[in-house]
This record gives sequence, structure tokens and C-alpha cells, in this order.
Amino acid sequence: MTMLAPGAVIGILGGGQLGRMLSTAAAELGFDVHIFTDEPDSPASRVSARTIVAAYDDANALADFADSVDVVTTEFENVPAATADILRSAGALVRPDPNALALAQDRIEEKSFFNKLGVETAPFAAVTTRGELDAALDKIGIPAILKTRRLGYDGKGQARIMREEDADVAYAAMMGQAAVLEGLCAFDREVSIVAARGADGAFSAYDLTENEHRGGILHRSVAPASGGAEISARAAAMTHLVAQALDYVGVLAIEFFVMPDGRLLANEMAPRVHNSGHWTMDACRTGQFEQHIRAVAGWPLGSPERLVDAEMINLIGDDVNAWQSIAEDTNARLHLYGKREARAGRKMGHVTRLTPRT
Amino acid sequence: MTMLAPGAVIGILGGGQLGRMLSTAAAELGFDVHIFTDEPDSPASRVSARTIVAAYDDANALADFADSVDVVTTEFENVPAATADILRSAGALVRPDPNALALAQDRIEEKSFFNKLGVETAPFAAVTTRGELDAALDKIGIPAILKTRRLGYDGKGQARIMREEDADVAYAAMMGQAAVLEGLCAFDREVSIVAARGADGAFSAYDLTENEHRGGILHRSVAPASGGAEISARAAAMTHLVAQALDYVGVLAIEFFVMPDGRLLANEMAPRVHNSGHWTMDACRTGQFEQHIRAVAGWPLGSPERLVDAEMINLIGDDVNAWQSIAEDTNARLHLYGKREARAGRKMGHVTRLTPRT
Repeated sequence: MTMLAPGAVIGILGGGQLGRMLSTAAAELGFDVHIFTDEPDSPASRVSARTIVAAYDDANALADFADSVDVVTTEFENVPAATADILRSAGALVRPDPNALALAQDRIEEKSFFNKLGVETAPFAAVTTRGELDAALDKIGIPAILKTRRLGYDGKGQARIMREEDADVAYAAMMGQAAVLEGLCAFDREVSIVAARGADGAFSAYDLTENEHRGGILHRSVAPASGGAEISARAAAMTHLVAQALDYVGVLAIEFFVMPDGRLLANEMAPRVHNSGHWTMDACRTGQFEQHIRAVAGWPLGSPERLVDAEMINLIGDDVNAWQSIAEDTNARLHLYGKREARAGRKMGHVTRLTPRT
Repeated sequence: MTMLAPGAVIGILGGGQLGRMLSTAAAELGFDVHIFTDEPDSPASRVSARTIVAAYDDANALADFADSVDVVTTEFENVPAATADILRSAGALVRPDPNALALAQDRIEEKSFFNKLGVETAPFAAVTTRGELDAALDKIGIPAILKTRRLGYDGKGQARIMREEDADVAYAAMMGQAAVLEGLCAFDREVSIVAARGADGAFSAYDLTENEHRGGILHRSVAPASGGAEISARAAAMTHLVAQALDYVGVLAIEFFVMPDGRLLANEMAPRVHNSGHWTMDACRTGQFEQHIRAVAGWPLGSPERLVDAEMINLIGDDVNAWQSIAEDTNARLHLYGKREARAGRKMGHVTRLTPRT
């Protein structure tokens, strides 16, 4: 495929805030956007030309969607394999390739893939039975964290094991699902690289972002991360390896732990635009949402140059009630996602503050 | 009215590119947008939650629109007075006030209003009959320009009179409509101020923009304008006077001629976001589209601070065919409006190039 011409239709699986911000970025480049979501009145649907509301295994609706768009992308990695299969059978071009989504859906596959490329991770072991958990704890040690092998995000499906006695509760929390035990590293900081690979194989990374989580959910991202350009370049190089090995097209993010000795341990990969890259839309020549659209449309990547320093804070649940004081802060860029109800733990928006480059 | 809460509905009259960019700016602040337009498949409708396609004098459709939104604004100044009346009868809050739109629809009213405030203009005279044209030419001199008194934009309904013999052709070009003869000033440069006034009376202007027209249509805008801060401050002060006298709420723009002696002559006012302010969306803390939404939603104005220097070039008609090379220019920010057909003279998009502040 060459470059999709303006007027072409970008199809997005998922109607949440990432789909919403992808959609408005696509519109800026002259594309129309069709959303496929199982949620009526979704944030993305309200800024898009057309929305199909149907289940992700509704073959007829997916075929209709595939027929109406020029390329399909996604705002979430947990796209069922069946959905991707139906779209491909219907002749849709899917970017990134569903293989990358499948990899990111399985923590063990993902970590093994990282290690094979020489990208270091915390020690990990597969756990299915209670006996396997004991064996894994022997191997990895305590403290550790038990996570469902599949479909976890924002701290869901995770249980920490700080003492031997926590093992039973943690195992029960998996509710019989296959899991992975990971060593809890005594890291200094959490950072992430948001990057993109174009259909032409070009690679482009944003400056390293430093992240602070609260209750398993991203709270704050700062760019540039402390520690200087060397760590940023090393993390970008690892992300480049991963993107290349997957023949990846689109924006992807990898979260890393920075260890006291300076080592970077890859934590997890998101085969999509990423919350820790939200600052790029206000601080860079090309934001991550436009960058992703450029990649999946077969356009050359835009410049990721950061024009200013940035701090992004998520508005989770009731945090959004502060919208009025944020609107009054002339240094704040407010982004709200159009969600009707501020439930606990729900990402309602974010606010970015810009300062001159240090 | 206090601040409209996120989730409220902004109604926009008009479905063109200004409505489109207003709509995505409103979405970023968490608002839903309903578009009212007489054009099916409009650029704005494809990024908005709901669109009513009906004639601007369809009272039922307008009442439905008024009922469904919390505030009505417009992307064009030529809103028929009847439309505004119907909306007000239906209880809609209309911002800016239709009086400002009415003023901007009548070149003679507008210039007289400017002069009354001490804002200088080129000499002008009303022309209805052929005899009045001769009298006006005697008074104002040649060269001059004859314009329809109402409903002109982008150089339409205008005829230059460079020699006495041009008068007949110019008069015929008005096709019997009331007109105004304006002295053609030997100006050095064309500039504009894009500014906003909040519902609280606060006023905020962007840096002065220098504009270059081709064939009566804006071709290029550069910020900051040459000539330094003094001219910018003087133009902003005049714009402030105008906004205050109109009790204006929203973004407005005034185009000025800079005379060789440094005088500023007001050319015309646009009671809306303005093409010469398109650079603000990429170069300022708050772009003009967000600024307008903030004002009409009763929010405090955002900071107009310009973070970088900017050059904006319009893509008119076939210019848009260069989209591919613009997409490859990593210094270019491309904005396309989603118009299906590149007709001559039609604004298809714009491209902004950013450089560090000088």
C-alpha cells in the first residue's frame, strides 16, 4: 500500500479515549473515521463520522466495518483473536498486525520475546497450579507479584506477595486463570518509551518519559525523564529492536524499570498509543495520535521533536471534578474524554503543563 | 450563566472548516457538539456528535437545535437575522450576540462603528445609484474599490476602480446591490489581530499576524508580524475597544492596513474565529478554536502565549494536491478539512511551519 489519500477512511476498534484522540488526529489529516465498539454513546463515536455498535465477535458487523474502511487499527490490545481473524478474512488491512496484539496479550510470550531479543526483564515463571506457585516462589523469591497471564491492565488481576503467607490469597485472586509470577524489582524509577514504526520501516521515538503510578494506574508522566539522554537512547534502541522484530506498524510503548545500577528492565509493551505519551500532543511537533495515524495510513512519520518540557497528570474518577480550577490555570492544557460518569479508577481526562525546555 | 460543565452541548451554526476545528477543540474540553448546517456531509458534521441538516430559515429545525444545545455559536458572520431571531425566540443563548454579526454584515455600519470608537478606516461612501458612485469617486478619489455593502467575503462582490473608465464595469458588477466605495490605501502591509473576550469581560489578544492575500483570498500568515510590539499593542487596544463596545463574547478578528507612516486603518472585522489565526492552534498555549469555545462556554480565557514563531499557508483549490510532499516535510503541520472536491478558490486545508521564537 502507498500513502492513503485524504478522504480515505480509518477504522478504529474501540470507542474509548484513545480512539477519541486518534479520531480527531485523523480528522486533522483529512481522514474520515469509523469506530467499531460494543459500547453505545462512546467517547470516540461522538467525534467520528460513523460508528458501528456491535459485539466484537459479530461477524456480519465486522465484515460491514471492514468493507467501509481502508485500514483498521485499534485502541486496545485485548482484541479477541477471533475479531482479527474475521477482519482479515473480510480482506481488511489491519495495522498493527494482530500478531503484535496477540503477543502483548500474553505476559509470558511477551517477556520471552523480549529476552530472546536481549531485552532484559524481571525474573518470571509461569504459574497454573498452586504447586507451581510454590516452585516459582522458590525460584524467584519474595517479594514477587502474581499476575493473570492474559488480559490485565491498570493493575487489575494482580496480587503482591510480600510474605510467604500472602501466597494463598494471591493464588485465589487469579480465580483459576493461568498466571505469571514476576520478581518485584527494587527499581529506582519507572519510565516508558513511546515510539512509532512506519510502514516503510522508519522508526521514531519520543523522549523518554518518567512515570508515577498510584494504585496500579498511571498518575503522572514527566518528559524528559531524569537521567539524561543516555538512558533515553538505550530504551529507544530496545524499543526499536522490538518494533523491528514484530515488523510493527504504528505507535507502541514499552514500560521499563530503571534499576539502581542503571539497567533497564522491560516491564510490558502496549501495541498502541499509550497514556504515558499523552503529553506529546501538546509538547511535540507531532503528537502520538497523529503519529499512529500517519503510520497506519502509510504516511511518513512526523517529527517527534519536543518543543517544551511537559508534565501530564491523569484525572482519575473524581479528580475530574477539579475541571473548573484546571480551566482557570493558564498554564494547564485540559483534555476531557467525554465520559458520562466519573466512576472510581476510570480515566476521565488528563491535564498537561508545559514549561520552556530545560 | 456560570461555566458550562463538561458534557454540555455546544451548538455550532455552519458545517465548514471553522466549525470542524471548533468542534474538535470543544471535544478536547469534554463538550459534545451539535452542528446545524444546510449542507449534507459537511466537514464539521463528520467530527461532531450530531448534525441537523436543514435550511437556515427552517423554524422547526432551528427550534429542535436550540432545544438540544446549551449555547449556540457560529462559524460564519452571514447568519440571516431571521435565524438569530428564531433561535432567540426558542430561548437559546447565542454567543457572540447576533448584534455583532449584524454589524459585520454591513460594511458601512461596521466602518461607521469603528470611526465612532476612534478606530480609523480608509475613506468610504455609500453607493446605491450610478450617480452616487460618481459623487463618491469625486469625494474619495481614484484608485478605489467598490464592494457590495453586505455578504461579501474572500474577494467576492468587489471591483477595483483604477481609472475613471472602470466605474461602469464596477457598478455593473454590484448587480444592483447597495455598495460602498472605499479608498484604496497605499498600505505597506496587511495585518490582523485575533482576540477573544470572555463572558466575564476579560480580553486576550494573540500576537499581531502579518497577512498576504492572493486574488482576494488569504494566502499566508506569519506571526509575529514585523514592526515589533508597539504596533501589535496598538492594534490589540483597538480590537479591545471594539469588543468591549459590542459586549462581545468569543473570538473576533480585525484586519488592519499598516500605512507607511505607521497608522493602522481597520479594514474589516470578523465576529468569529479567523483564517489568519489558524497558526495559533499549533503555536500557542491555547489555540483560537479552544479560546472561542472557552469564551462561549463561560470559561475563563486560556493563555494566548505564543511558544514558537509560525508561518501558516492556505491550501486553496489544487494546492491540496501537494499533501504528499507536505506530509513528508517534518517541519510542517498539515491540517486538511475533509472537503470532497478541490474546487478553484476553495479552502481545502492549511499548513503551519514552526520555528524557535526569534
